[in-house]
Amino acid sequence: MKTLEFTTETSSNGIVEREFTLGDFDGALWSPASGAERAPLILMGHGGGNHHKSPAMSGRAARLVAIGGFNVATIDAPGHGRRPRTEHDEREIALMQQAMAAGEPVGPIVVPYNLHLAERAVPEWRATLDALQELPEIGPQGPVGYYGLNMGTAIGIPLTAAEPRIRAAVFGQFWPDPLAATAKRITVPVEYDLQWDDEHIPRAEGLALFDAFASKDKTLHANAGRHKELPRFEADSAAHFFVRHLGRATAA
Amino acid sequence: MKTLEFTTETSSNGIVEREFTLGDFDGALWSPASGAERAPLILMGHGGGNHHKSPAMSGRAARLVAIGGFNVATIDAPGHGRRPRTEHDEREIALMQQAMAAGEPVGPIVVPYNLHLAERAVPEWRATLDALQELPEIGPQGPVGYYGLNMGTAIGIPLTAAEPRIRAAVFGQFWPDPLAATAKRITVPVEYDLQWDDEHIPRAEGLALFDAFASKDKTLHANAGRHKELPRFEADSAAHFFVRHLGRATAA
Repeated sequence: MKTLEFTTETSSNGIVEREFTLGDFDGALWSPASGAERAPLILMGHGGGNHHKSPAMSGRAARLVAIGGFNVATIDAPGHGRRPRTEHDEREIALMQQAMAAGEPVGPIVVPYNLHLAERAVPEWRATLDALQELPEIGPQGPVGYYGLNMGTAIGIPLTAAEPRIRAAVFGQFWPDPLAATAKRITVPVEYDLQWDDEHIPRAEGLALFDAFASKDKTLHANAGRHKELPRFEADSAAHFFVRHLGRATAA
Repeated sequence: MKTLEFTTETSSNGIVEREFTLGDFDGALWSPASGAERAPLILMGHGGGNHHKSPAMSGRAARLVAIGGFNVATIDAPGHGRRPRTEHDEREIALMQQAMAAGEPVGPIVVPYNLHLAERAVPEWRATLDALQELPEIGPQGPVGYYGLNMGTAIGIPLTAAEPRIRAAVFGQFWPDPLAATAKRITVPVEYDLQWDDEHIPRAEGLALFDAFASKDKTLHANAGRHKELPRFEADSAAHFFVRHLGRATAA
């Protein structure tokens, strides 16, 4: 098992941020300045073209720490952040940019490419979870949640289906085919975000992926607006969702 | 203008509950024990067959006071609580019970009956709002919200469309025809609750009513479960929604 090595540590507004490396990828761990011991752990997957310390990731981490007192971890997906791109990555990204520029549907490119990335990413996430649970402040027993939209959902659905340690998940903004088949194997509580006027993901397709989860406890949050207009208050809602299902850190 | 007269006052857990009468109907006003002055006012409409002090009303009021420090008012709908039923009320209620017992769709009875009640209820709500705004602790200037599901939505949509003082609303669980035409005139922020597996309101019809609101800022919360299984945490979500749009009482 590869060892997680912390490279930097900064602290502000009651949140400690530590960057780490694990083998050949980078990550970050946010924790409350006090009370992090044995707090529930939230794994956050970033969106396509983004990275583990993008503003969306650090912004959501801040809300999760403030509301739930959680430990929050992100890692770079394959081909993202400082990680090298394969020829396959380069080809798919070029195709995606061509489709965007031409105003053509991106789903037929994004879906298979993101599921290809998920095959590479799921073992990396499981190794990350192993390594995080070796840390004395996290430990092997605490509840774990997953939070990722867009590509973070394409990776998170197979990860959650495969990983019994994940006990609640927030997903959103992806196409159902062929991911719905995997979603049907997920029974943990799910909160699902979609944009009601998404110009990339047809409304019926977004609803179909939500419908597929086998979870008895699942909630759809559909907000008016286009793909990139997901309201920031959904991060607060996700934090309250994790508090309901994983508990709150005692000191938070 | 009829005068609002308080009949009882009790206080527990930091919440003051006062019952009142206004002409020929009863109501209740919940307020924080301190800091109620000029706090935003939430009007809550109860569901069919229910009344102004049902557990759903007092339970939601408690969450609204705790989270937002709001003043929260309910009144009995026509034919509900201690109010007399008309022959029309008796006939429609009997038809509804027959349909329920026979396992037949209730929408064809509930929809026209609830819209008939709305015609009687909307002027009563406006008179109630006038009277509440005469109270020194509420005043004429503060922001007003409306929160009502089921019959509370059948009454609340025409009320909100007619009443410019209502600046944000939480609705849910109703049929679109013919209410969608009125919803199209509503532009204030809306949060809309529906049950994904509602045995009375077909999913596509629930989604169609949400779709109809003209509001740029609107959010659908769809939860797995049947009609009566709406999760209680949606009351907390409604409170956070009103805090976002109406502000929080200073002392809350």
